[in-house]
Amino acid sequence: MSDKVKPRLSRGLRDLLPDRMLARQTMIDKIRQVFEVYGFAPLETPAIEYLDVLTGSAGEEAQQSMFHVRIPREADEALALRFDLTVPLARVVSQYPDLPKPFRRYQVSPVWRADKPDKGRFREFLQFDLDSVGVESEIADTEIIAGMCDSLSALGVERYLVKFSSRALLNLLLDYSEIPQESSVDVFRVLDKLDKVGVEKVRKELTSGYVDESGDPISGLGLSTGQVEKIERFLAVRSPDRKEVVAMLRDLFKSQPGAAERIGVVESISRHLYSLGYGDDRVSLDLSIARGLAYYTGPVFEAVLGDAPQFGSVFGGGRYDFLVERFLGEKMPATGASMGVDRLQAALEHLGKIPQRKSTARVLVTVFDPELQDDSLAMAFELRRAGIPTELYLGGAKRVGKQLKHADRGGIPICVLFGSHEKERGFVTLKNMQTGKTRASELRKREDWLEERPGQLEVPRNDLVAAVRQLLAAID
Amino acid sequence: MSDKVKPRLSRGLRDLLPDRMLARQTMIDKIRQVFEVYGFAPLETPAIEYLDVLTGSAGEEAQQSMFHVRIPREADEALALRFDLTVPLARVVSQYPDLPKPFRRYQVSPVWRADKPDKGRFREFLQFDLDSVGVESEIADTEIIAGMCDSLSALGVERYLVKFSSRALLNLLLDYSEIPQESSVDVFRVLDKLDKVGVEKVRKELTSGYVDESGDPISGLGLSTGQVEKIERFLAVRSPDRKEVVAMLRDLFKSQPGAAERIGVVESISRHLYSLGYGDDRVSLDLSIARGLAYYTGPVFEAVLGDAPQFGSVFGGGRYDFLVERFLGEKMPATGASMGVDRLQAALEHLGKIPQRKSTARVLVTVFDPELQDDSLAMAFELRRAGIPTELYLGGAKRVGKQLKHADRGGIPICVLFGSHEKERGFVTLKNMQTGKTRASELRKREDWLEERPGQLEVPRNDLVAAVRQLLAAID
Repeated sequence: MSDKVKPRLSRGLRDLLPDRMLARQTMIDKIRQVFEVYGFAPLETPAIEYLDVLTGSAGEEAQQSMFHVRIPREADEALALRFDLTVPLARVVSQYPDLPKPFRRYQVSPVWRADKPDKGRFREFLQFDLDSVGVESEIADTEIIAGMCDSLSALGVERYLVKFSSRALLNLLLDYSEIPQESSVDVFRVLDKLDKVGVEKVRKELTSGYVDESGDPISGLGLSTGQVEKIERFLAVRSPDRKEVVAMLRDLFKSQPGAAERIGVVESISRHLYSLGYGDDRVSLDLSIARGLAYYTGPVFEAVLGDAPQFGSVFGGGRYDFLVERFLGEKMPATGASMGVDRLQAALEHLGKIPQRKSTARVLVTVFDPELQDDSLAMAFELRRAGIPTELYLGGAKRVGKQLKHADRGGIPICVLFGSHEKERGFVTLKNMQTGKTRASELRKREDWLEERPGQLEVPRNDLVAAVRQLLAAID
Repeated sequence: MSDKVKPRLSRGLRDLLPDRMLARQTMIDKIRQVFEVYGFAPLETPAIEYLDVLTGSAGEEAQQSMFHVRIPREADEALALRFDLTVPLARVVSQYPDLPKPFRRYQVSPVWRADKPDKGRFREFLQFDLDSVGVESEIADTEIIAGMCDSLSALGVERYLVKFSSRALLNLLLDYSEIPQESSVDVFRVLDKLDKVGVEKVRKELTSGYVDESGDPISGLGLSTGQVEKIERFLAVRSPDRKEVVAMLRDLFKSQPGAAERIGVVESISRHLYSLGYGDDRVSLDLSIARGLAYYTGPVFEAVLGDAPQFGSVFGGGRYDFLVERFLGEKMPATGASMGVDRLQAALEHLGKIPQRKSTARVLVTVFDPELQDDSLAMAFELRRAGIPTELYLGGAKRVGKQLKHADRGGIPICVLFGSHEKERGFVTLKNMQTGKTRASELRKREDWLEERPGQLEVPRNDLVAAVRQLLAAID
């Protein structure tokens, strides 16, 4: 064939080779397990949806960043790839009215966005979403916060903080500082910049505006100094102690009608979490988190890693009630969270919390010569039947040195050597590929397990499985 | 919002609601585990590929059944959704020449085909593929057959048969019956119909042709009676004993040059399988399987279920060597198999081999009244921390009867009841939702576990986890 095709991917797309994929699966499996124990059930929806299902009334703009799908001989349907897992959830809840409510599902699926690709930003990426649909109770929000904590603990992360706040508190702020609801989106947008631009610029943008470094005018929202002062008083409500934050809020809004009830919800969540053992070291009531508050209608939450804050929020969500409105014309309470799979994986890799492996195999059984192939095959299956992930070397290399190199490149820690020398004596040699780390001699449990040279253990053929198990236990 | 969007999917697409998805995950996880123990590593590739990568020189025809993908503001790239996992594997092997070989990977991902949808035939469906790339040894084929057996055993299937044959045997047949290689594709295509149309029609189609029921002429291939006789002699080589099939082949092809070596390969596979414990009850050497032999170049295999033969082949594959040719212009040996996920799941459901559950939860903790909510919350988390999947009822229903109904609809077998009656006495009531099946009284291990009425067990609050564990063990 002379017309060779160049193997390549379109921009923003990528392969997950075994090393990245093994790490990802380990991570996903652990989180999946946490939420299954919480009673969330898996859901799968197709990648392809009708365009109007995906965009609703959002229209043109939203469609621009979607991947459109066309079937050659059926050009009449407007289809696209989903850009999130929330819209498909809304469609499912609307399409199958008989689904028992509360409907608590998780979904782990790729989504597609035709945004400008960037370092660490891809056009196809995996999302892990969990949502409780049809629930008013703040215990549903409590559960999601607890699940976020348990997931991070299950992943071995020692220091993390799930921050939460609520749209209801922001509404109190609007009342308190006499800002009309219509301006809320703009005000929240500006407040959201606090971490990035600092208090001085935020203050200016809330009032008369300013000219930024590049000479562009940033127009102000026209709030009065008195209003801004009140906003600042709200933002000053900070403490690592959730009880103290609640007390400060009570004090700040003491003359505000409806304050008791609204503060009551976040206090309830905080109290439930205390009683379940989620103290201030793991969950904080932090009024600075916004998470696009125009979208959320109640509690909001996000998780950051104490030892990897540079990765930002790795897990976040909140309460929203417009879920099925597009389809059913009515509201339905729901709360949920979404994991940034790529971001969390990058953070865990940075923290060394995911084993970096290129192969599932923990043992490579080498093949000395074709005559001994049957013995090698038998040993590989003995190990596999004992549940030990094992590769039998099937490549073209005849020399054992090359086979050992294959194990080395794949990060396989143990090699089994069985030549005529071993066969005659009824022994098998185990080579520890990480000799520097673990000396086989440390494992010598039996008198007839001989260490001929460092990291190379000779054991009776019948002890193969037992010896490999011990060696692996010492390595891991 | 007045413009409601109808929640719906395009034809050939479907949702996997929790019951189907739970069954699928259980199945996939078990098979994944088998192949990880075999040392296959996971790979993930993007859904979107370049059209020329997908089609190579196949061109127009193949493109007709693909979903094409377009980015609104970047209309210059020809992209489509992958239709299998083999082409992406070929691209990956070609694109990353440093990947260690043999490269043994599995991939579990959806593929898309814009074929005419039909009952049980979808346009987006999951594939589970495993392949060893860069291996000549027939032990690689042996491993895949063994892995197919182990997967079906792991799924609890008692009776299955993995049938194998080889393209090499068909080539022997071509030589033996003096059929030129150029006609082989046509001959195999006709032989492939044997099961469907019977020997008489196959015989006619191989020779002079015939007119079928609807009056359409089926043209013949023009083989001589002598040639057809030889083909029939080949097809008569049948025995449940693999050793006997080998002996019959040796006898049939005794004067055929190259026969010893070609038969040697299938004999080797058979012998390895015997030595590993895969007897004639699980693996047969069956010359009638064809699996599009024009595609495969060596051994081919497929699995059928003894108690669900109507589902056809649930797992199949073979050896092929053109994998990377499109990209690198050279051949590379490879062997692999693909699981028909939908088909296998349907067969396992038919056989009752997959638990049919709508919820991950095994326990529903009900909420008697708001004042006791904290107690219910605490119990739910106690159970979760003991690893027992638990849902806390968070719906709007106040009456316990409705909450029990929620458990019933979700197939949750145990409900925890905790009202003021229980609280006063320091007890908790466990309701067994499958009373007909398991009587709680059978579990009475301790004197203070009281059965007030059938299926309703009262235990001290502190025994909650222990009692639920026992009840679940009895139910499962």
